[in-house]
Amino acid sequence: MQSVPDVLLRKAVKMVRVSRETADTHKRELADAAGRLFRERGLGGVGVAEIGRAAGLTHGAIYSSFASKGELAVAALKAGREASRNRTMKAVGANPDVKTILAHYVSKRQRDDRINCCPMVASASEAARQDSGYRSAFAEIFFELASTVEAAIERRGASDARRRALAVAAGMIGAVAVARALDGRAADELLDAARTSLTELADS
Amino acid sequence: MQSVPDVLLRKAVKMVRVSRETADTHKRELADAAGRLFRERGLGGVGVAEIGRAAGLTHGAIYSSFASKGELAVAALKAGREASRNRTMKAVGANPDVKTILAHYVSKRQRDDRINCCPMVASASEAARQDSGYRSAFAEIFFELASTVEAAIERRGASDARRRALAVAAGMIGAVAVARALDGRAADELLDAARTSLTELADS
Repeated sequence: MQSVPDVLLRKAVKMVRVSRETADTHKRELADAAGRLFRERGLGGVGVAEIGRAAGLTHGAIYSSFASKGELAVAALKAGREASRNRTMKAVGANPDVKTILAHYVSKRQRDDRINCCPMVASASEAARQDSGYRSAFAEIFFELASTVEAAIERRGASDARRRALAVAAGMIGAVAVARALDGRAADELLDAARTSLTELADS
Repeated sequence: MQSVPDVLLRKAVKMVRVSRETADTHKRELADAAGRLFRERGLGGVGVAEIGRAAGLTHGAIYSSFASKGELAVAALKAGREASRNRTMKAVGANPDVKTILAHYVSKRQRDDRINCCPMVASASEAARQDSGYRSAFAEIFFELASTVEAAIERRGASDARRRALAVAAGMIGAVAVARALDGRAADELLDAARTSLTELADS
């Protein structure tokens, strides 16, 4: 083994670190761009080439970050969930009660903003048709949402918190997904009905 | 105008009627074949050419029945709903109570059978991205399901029947759609939770 001057070694280590950081940033930007397109147009409604164009990258550059469209979809799902979680935290704080969670999630904003929204709403019926990587990430996100609702129910001392929380979480996703397909007035009625009724369910 | 012997006229009228009947049967078979594929693989996951092959028809023969893939998707949605309604009627009869509706709809059968299932579950997140024809057919089917639930709630004399029925119907769709993405045990827990909790919501 050849001896390398310390200064060169430090430089090489730094270069590797920087290039890793660049690769990570790159991956993150790609996942964000893909997530926006997937949520807007559906998982089957956009191809890798178009995601590349949206992110200013070639097909090849994408495949150096993600092995497949499926892997990119998982990263996009996770990035979308993180963005959604951050928006929620900012809007409702830590330890929100059920009414606050529902007001934020089952909302006109979430119905209308199809790009900055919960990725579970955007892929509710498509998730089941994805590969196991997507489905297990979706499951993790679903149980995370259910746990937030469960903690809120438990703080009120209601019984069967987990059972109710699972139903409320599925109802939240169903209500927003269906409301998006309805016209304005019908959608408003459904969102109002779901907010009030799911709060009752959690509180009973 | 030339006079035509009665026997020929009757023959001509019969031929037109038969050819109309054939065309209707044709359309219906196509809608059924398309519906099965759409529900299994998603609205974006299957093309017109493949639907033609499944129905033993050419591309051109499909377009003589339906002006576009969108029009075929609407016919498939309506045919799927009719088949789903017939299955339900056969299983639970007329005027079912909420518990019976939920036992039939939020079930392992409906989670596992992705071909013979409610088309709203199969397209919950995709519906919003379809044309207005699809969305208004979806809305009609959704309010029809909600009305069935509403009638069941009213028979028990519970208050705010429509409001609760809308939330229950959205919860039913959300629970089955999400359960399909989960693995067996988690899905079972969600289906059980939704059945029990949505019955409580309807009955409270």
